[in-house]
Parts: sequence; structure tokens; C-alpha cells
Amino acid sequence: MSNPGFSKGLEGVVAAESTICKVDGENGRLFYLGYSIRDLVEHCTFEEVTFLLLYGQLPNEEQLEDFSSAMRGKRKLEDPVKKMITDFPRDSHPMEMLQTVVPYLAAYSGPEGCRDTEFDCLYAEHLIPQLASAVAAWHRVQQDLPIVDPDRSLSHGANFLYMLTGEKPSELAGRIMDGCLILHAEHGLNASTFTARVVASTLSTCYSAIAAAIGALYGPLHGGANEKVMDMVDEIEADASLSPGEWVSKALSEKRKIMGMGHRVYRAKDPRAIIIEGYLEELGKQQGDTSYYDMLKEVERVFRERMEEKGKPIYPNVDFFSGALYRMLGVPTILFTPIFALSRASGWLSHIIEQRHDNRLYRPSSTYVGEIDRPFAPMSERE
Amino acid sequence: MSNPGFSKGLEGVVAAESTICKVDGENGRLFYLGYSIRDLVEHCTFEEVTFLLLYGQLPNEEQLEDFSSAMRGKRKLEDPVKKMITDFPRDSHPMEMLQTVVPYLAAYSGPEGCRDTEFDCLYAEHLIPQLASAVAAWHRVQQDLPIVDPDRSLSHGANFLYMLTGEKPSELAGRIMDGCLILHAEHGLNASTFTARVVASTLSTCYSAIAAAIGALYGPLHGGANEKVMDMVDEIEADASLSPGEWVSKALSEKRKIMGMGHRVYRAKDPRAIIIEGYLEELGKQQGDTSYYDMLKEVERVFRERMEEKGKPIYPNVDFFSGALYRMLGVPTILFTPIFALSRASGWLSHIIEQRHDNRLYRPSSTYVGEIDRPFAPMSERE
Repeated sequence: MSNPGFSKGLEGVVAAESTICKVDGENGRLFYLGYSIRDLVEHCTFEEVTFLLLYGQLPNEEQLEDFSSAMRGKRKLEDPVKKMITDFPRDSHPMEMLQTVVPYLAAYSGPEGCRDTEFDCLYAEHLIPQLASAVAAWHRVQQDLPIVDPDRSLSHGANFLYMLTGEKPSELAGRIMDGCLILHAEHGLNASTFTARVVASTLSTCYSAIAAAIGALYGPLHGGANEKVMDMVDEIEADASLSPGEWVSKALSEKRKIMGMGHRVYRAKDPRAIIIEGYLEELGKQQGDTSYYDMLKEVERVFRERMEEKGKPIYPNVDFFSGALYRMLGVPTILFTPIFALSRASGWLSHIIEQRHDNRLYRPSSTYVGEIDRPFAPMSERE
Repeated sequence: MSNPGFSKGLEGVVAAESTICKVDGENGRLFYLGYSIRDLVEHCTFEEVTFLLLYGQLPNEEQLEDFSSAMRGKRKLEDPVKKMITDFPRDSHPMEMLQTVVPYLAAYSGPEGCRDTEFDCLYAEHLIPQLASAVAAWHRVQQDLPIVDPDRSLSHGANFLYMLTGEKPSELAGRIMDGCLILHAEHGLNASTFTARVVASTLSTCYSAIAAAIGALYGPLHGGANEKVMDMVDEIEADASLSPGEWVSKALSEKRKIMGMGHRVYRAKDPRAIIIEGYLEELGKQQGDTSYYDMLKEVERVFRERMEEKGKPIYPNVDFFSGALYRMLGVPTILFTPIFALSRASGWLSHIIEQRHDNRLYRPSSTYVGEIDRPFAPMSERE
């Protein structure tokens, strides 16, 4: 077998050809199935974008109505699933709960055939709303509050906030939540999406592949960046002696990392960050409190000034503003990564479909660099 | 970014350097950490081989006693885990149950710190026995039989059979089960092991990585081959008009695939198949019924004759004899892949440790082959 050399972490190795997501890092643009994320977030619901990711085209009115109606009809958790979430240990992490609940969902309330190797979009219609409901239910249980049943009249994002807080969100808050789910739904071949494709390539069920992807997203090298931004926000807020800008200058002089800045691919400002920044300002104005927005903009301004002085233009990424926005929407920090999961589920499913469409089992090689034919020492001779 | 071309399924691409497993396909030899599988299966318990896979060296007497004692002390399932397995839907698949139970185990009974990013062999000591107990418990529940509590005096393999059947196995049966677990514990970078490494590379918990690997093994392109051999065995047995050899000739003339033959890597007889064949003969003699052994040997003989006539030497692989052996040990067919999982868990954990030792996040690229900047059509203009 030819050995084309070893690239750690498969960096630079092409593991798939894909028509799903294009990141134009130079120009700070992002496309799902060729459509600019700006257009999608401005004109579409999360359900509409999910349809695009599953079927490769935008739905017409009838298709969207059927699809949204199907997804909304599958939001309610079955009693055994509620019970399982209720029984889940209190000190567990919601990502553990999610990884547990997904194969359980297949077993309990999955559509007929959901254990077949053939993919059917029915599974997506079931899985995506159930994930959102499971995360909301977990939070309610943690707060010793009753689980809230879904409301079909609400969008996917608004219903999630309703099931989380028990209160119907404002039109703006619901729209922003839906927009955030759209913005996180897909971003090419990251570790969790790659995991989903590898598992799907064995012809395992899509539930298994999604559960596996959740396991990958749980890793701090992958998910969790916006949590770290909020740790920074809390630290800046707690230090009354320094303005946010002064805090940044001090942190940089101490060679500390400013969270939420820079991106492996984007050389311009992450287009998702621009949209989320707008949401944060809009919601702050509606709620009469723009302090997070003001603080983060000052952090960004001072950080960029310092970087430009060094000739290193570095911009905020998607995580820089999203944590503060989620907090203003009433979402606790521990749910940031689970929300990423229930948004990205649409992208994972899109990749599972693409993988299956022209499948080849992922089976890379390894190079053996160990010993061979070690003499077997009987127990009495071992040190 | 350089694009070294696209190899579907990452075929021929090196994704890791490893000291864990060497398959010498030309000569039909297999090594774990440099030790021949023949030596290991002849002299070691499964616990001993697990120690080797985790620590990279064979244990001395005291180390083995401590390690075995720790693993045996962690076999018992906590009540909430038993309850979860009992409540699992009856028509579910045990691989779904296993994938569900692993993150649940972390949440319920995992050792302190088991959600940390640092790997600790304590997690392996907990996870490996719990997996075996969970599979046995699932089977008992399916049979409407009480869950059997473990017996510390028995080896890992013998205890599994005891918890499965409620009866202590013969010394030979226990030894054979332990041997089968050793033989399946590791085999390099297949799809499930690769999945475990990818998830581990995000610094997710080892429970998440194992659950994800279980999801990959659930796929019919990966696990399940020995089930297909048993379908063939049952078909041969049901056809009284043909001897096994005649059945093979007829099947080949009809261009049917003979299951359990050939291997991507081995050009000689799979060394594991040779050992399992010996087990099957030995157990058959003890039980006074060598009919499976006799049948499979005739299938092998006639198949190899026909292949050699064509100049294609093809040999049985590990799956050819293992299904019949498991059946004689009282293991139902649906548990074959779960048993593979609870054996391979040791190998997965070994790879997780190796991955973490010099970690780099797995993040391959994809090549975008889709459209860009599609004009956004308003709803009313969509077809």
C-alpha cells in the first residue's frame, strides 16, 4: 500500500467532496448550498434552512408548510424520554444527557425504519425537534421546574426559548434565537461533522451518527468557545477598576489570550459575528440594556487597534458575541454547547445524507512504529 | 491550502502513527504491543491483555492482581443503570442500548473526574466490566429473567457467560470466552477505532469516545459479519438434500458470496481464525457435538479447493468460526456485535490513550464542489 506520508490530525488532507458548505475566508463570506448566509438569515426560518440542508434546495410554500408542520408535530417528548431526562443525575453535563438520549429516542419514538441503513428525511423531522425539547427539558428538571410542552404556533427557535423559560419570548427574541440556530447549522468538515460522516459510512443509523457527533462536540477543543468568552466578560465586569479597553490592554501586556478572536479560516470578520453583533445591539435596545454590546465592542476596538499596531489584523469570530446574546435570551452558560448541537444537527444530517449518497467506508491506515515479536515473559520473570 | 488529492474513505491515507497493533498480513500474524496474539491467548487472561493495552507492558503478579481485583470490583451495575436497561424498549437493538448506557454510566457511576479531559486508567477499570454487565443484563431482561449479579471469582469471560446464562460455565467454556475477548480486543485503525480517536482528539471524555465508537461498530459495513456466517450455517443445516460441501459448490456456481472468507489485509489464514477453530473443535468434543466444527471445516475445504483451482487462495477470517462458537457457548446471535464492542473497548481505550499522549485535533479538509452565490429566490418564485 502506498504511504503518502503522515499529516497529524489529517491537516490538509481532503476527506470529502461536498456541495454543502463553502467558507470564503478571504472575503468573510459563508454559503449553505450556494446561498449566502446573509440571505438565509434575513429571509428564512430555521426549518426552511434545515429543508435546504436536507433536500439541497429551498422549499416552496407548500413544501415548507408540510415540513414545518411535520417538525412541529414531533416536538413533544414521549413520557419515557421525559422520565429518562428527569432521572438523569443532577451533576451530569447536558451533552452527556444529549448523547444518551439520541439512541434512546431511536429506540422509543423513532419513525418506523429508523434503524435501517437507508436514510430517510423522516428521521431528521423527528430528531431535530426532539433534540431541542430534550435540552429544554433537561434545564427545567435542573431548576426543579415542570417540563414545558411545546407550542406549535412558535418557530423552532421561539419554541425552544418557550420550553426553556416557560414564557413566550418577544417576537424579536424568537427571531434572534431562530437566526442563531441558522448561523450555527453548518460549517463544513469540523471534528463533529467528520465524526458523523465516519460513523454514517459504516451504514450505522443516523441516530448513532448524531450521537457520536455530539460526543465530539462535547470536547473542549471543539465546542465551548463562547463559554470561555463569557468567563472573560464576567471577569471584565467584576473588575471595576478597569474599563473594558484598559482590561484588554492589561491582558495583552500579560500575554493573555483574548477569547473569541481570530479564526483558522476567516481572514476577514466572521460573517456570523457581524450578524450576531447586530442581534446583540438590537436586543439590548429592546431590553433597555446595551451593556454587553458596549463592553464587547470596546474589547473588539481596543484589541483590533493593538493587533493592527503589530500588523496582525485579527477579527472577532462567531463565538465573540454569541454567549452574551444567549445570556440576554435567558439561556444559561451550560446550555451553549448543547444549543450548538441542536443547531448543527441539521448540518450533520446533511453530511450524513451526502456521505450515504456515494458511500465508501472510512478506513484510513496507521503506520506501525512499535516493536515486533517481543519475547513473551512468563509472569515470574516480569519486573 | 495544499490539496494532496482526494482519496475516498481516506483509503491509503495514514491517519495515525501507532505502537499498539501490528497486522502482518503476509505471514498471518498479529501482535498487540509487539506480543504475538498466540502467546497472549495461550498465557494471559483478558484482564492481563487489557493491562497490556492500557499500560504498554505486561503486568507483574502484583500489578495484575490489583488490576483484576479493581475490574472485578466494578462489575456490578448500579440500580439506576439496571433500571434504565430494564426500561429500554423491547424491540430495540442491544447496540443502541450500549451506546445509550455509556454516557449514562459516566453520569451515574463513573469514577471521580471521569468527565475531565485528562485520561485516567481508572475509567477503563470501570467501563470495561460495566459494558459486559450491561450486555448480559439486557439479554436477561429480554428473556424476562432476573439480572444476575457478578461473581468476582470468575474471569472476565467466564463471568460474562455466568451473568448471561445464570449458570457457571465449565472451565473450558470460560477460558474460551476469555480467549475470544482477547482475540477481538484490538486490530488497528478500523472505522470504530478511528471514530474513538477522532472524538478523543477533541478532548471529549473517554466515555463519549467509546459511545461514538460503539455507534460506528453498529454499522453493518463494520460489525456483524459473524452474524451473516450463522445465517449461512442455518441455511446449510436446513437444506437436508445437500452436504455442506455440495452446498458450497452450488452456491459458488450461483455466484453467491461465501461468508467469513477472505480479508482485506491477511494473505494467509487469519491467526485468530486458527485459534477460534481450535476452540470450536475442543468445545464440540467436550459437549459431545462437533457438528458445527465438522460443517465449517467442510465448507472451508471445498471453498479453498474451488478457489485454488482458480489460482485464488482465500482463507477463512476471524468471523468464520466465531459465530458457531458463540452459539455453542449459549450466546444468541443478536449479541455477537455487542460482544465485539465489549472486547474491542480495550483496544479503543488504548488508542484513546495513544491519541491523547500526543494529541492533534482531527480536522481534515473537504473540497467544495457545489455552486456559489446562488441568487436567493423569494418564496413566491420557488418552484
